[in-house]
Amino acid sequence: MSLTPTPPLVKLVGAGPGAADLLTLRAVRAIEWASLLLVDDLVNPDIVALASPQARVIHVGKRGGCQQTPQAFIERLMVRGAQGGERVVRLKGGDPFIFGRGGEEVQTLRSHGMEVEVINGITAGLAGVSSLGVPLTHRQHAQGVVLLTGHAQAGALATNWGAVAQAASQLHLTLVIYMGVRELPAIEQGLRQGLADDTPVAVIQNATLPQQRHAVTVLSDLAAMVLREGLSSPAIVVVGDVLKGLAQAQAVACENTGLFEENLEHAWTLNASTSLAAR
Amino acid sequence: MSLTPTPPLVKLVGAGPGAADLLTLRAVRAIEWASLLLVDDLVNPDIVALASPQARVIHVGKRGGCQQTPQAFIERLMVRGAQGGERVVRLKGGDPFIFGRGGEEVQTLRSHGMEVEVINGITAGLAGVSSLGVPLTHRQHAQGVVLLTGHAQAGALATNWGAVAQAASQLHLTLVIYMGVRELPAIEQGLRQGLADDTPVAVIQNATLPQQRHAVTVLSDLAAMVLREGLSSPAIVVVGDVLKGLAQAQAVACENTGLFEENLEHAWTLNASTSLAAR
Repeated sequence: MSLTPTPPLVKLVGAGPGAADLLTLRAVRAIEWASLLLVDDLVNPDIVALASPQARVIHVGKRGGCQQTPQAFIERLMVRGAQGGERVVRLKGGDPFIFGRGGEEVQTLRSHGMEVEVINGITAGLAGVSSLGVPLTHRQHAQGVVLLTGHAQAGALATNWGAVAQAASQLHLTLVIYMGVRELPAIEQGLRQGLADDTPVAVIQNATLPQQRHAVTVLSDLAAMVLREGLSSPAIVVVGDVLKGLAQAQAVACENTGLFEENLEHAWTLNASTSLAAR
Repeated sequence: MSLTPTPPLVKLVGAGPGAADLLTLRAVRAIEWASLLLVDDLVNPDIVALASPQARVIHVGKRGGCQQTPQAFIERLMVRGAQGGERVVRLKGGDPFIFGRGGEEVQTLRSHGMEVEVINGITAGLAGVSSLGVPLTHRQHAQGVVLLTGHAQAGALATNWGAVAQAASQLHLTLVIYMGVRELPAIEQGLRQGLADDTPVAVIQNATLPQQRHAVTVLSDLAAMVLREGLSSPAIVVVGDVLKGLAQAQAVACENTGLFEENLEHAWTLNASTSLAAR
């Protein structure tokens, strides 16, 4: 009788949008299980601190302005660790399967005969919008949601923002754009080919973290507003009529405090804790 | 000196896709905090069991074929509970702000002067796809994801599935359709106006629960396959080239066990536990 050895198991774990308590219970257990933890840079240190004191933690994301650790190197680390008997967890910001290259990692691991468990995380785009108290869908305003990346990766197709805008307008879709801040002038220009200049937009930086900031304006002011308000990565851009209620509510709030503007042309920045504080 | 009373706080909590350990830590604490819990029918009883033994639990979702509790009645329950000093938690399947009418509930609660905290959940569509080991985005196959509902609610706009298909094809988007099983013939017909007949599709029933089932086929066989395999609500429909790897991997698996088919025309159903078991 021959026993087939159990293939090594690697876990790809979503760390969620930022706040440590937005981790799932399953993710917590996976992090505690790990003996080798490969961590993206945007993952909250409070989440990494859940790892066993005996676990090795390797940070593999971008750091400041430096080059990203090559994807092939990360995948080699996972394969070698698992082959060497380590309990490997790859900890990624948000959800591993949304703009996280998790699909490529799964392919590599399986091609080496490994089993892979994927543990979803709350994706930053959806959490960022929710943190403003704004729904992604609404019977009157949005029939659905599109998640897109503004930062075309090497080897990827370029996004036709004009066509995105036409689809969003025709189909009443909310747009949620990840990693778009650096490309905003081009994104704004493209989107204005299919969406009205006064379409509400919001930019949310550091969603769900104590330092979260956001600003709301209209599409034709998007790139200028981000410069004016000093918003930067990591940030989510949201476009669509679901923001209308927010814009109105904030206009009323500004009016009450003597800061009312006639229209949305002047953007405003609010610390999210003023509207929807975590308790 | 006058003290302004603190407005009542109501929490809208996402229960996630099904499995109890896919709940976030913040959601667990909110459920434990509740004295009055209003629960949708699809929420896992293991999650409701986290509530305090002193809490009142009211099920407000659809039951079997019965009418859904009117939305206005649910909102009245929340308002009256909170005005009466209850710590009200509205527990919804998936994420409260994705096809959950959470936006309407927030509007009503705020119009009564209440504070609302929204706690995101892992949305069933994304979890369902991930449970197959398939990424939602991929540099070669999908630049983004669209979340749509197949079940047009009263008062909502009808979805133009032909235009959805054209956008998905032109922009390389994965489609994730919630609540679409009953409308599949119309959805298939519309999608075929813009997507090739051999576009891979999958249907996932009871995502992340022990009784999860799924089947994979091509777009032109979608409605017929669901009938043949006896798949029913609650289910997620996924359409797009990200499923190609899965189709190939499953064809190989079938070949190895003598079940290989020349092409995808015959769909197959696999219990998800064979591919990506939770451990």
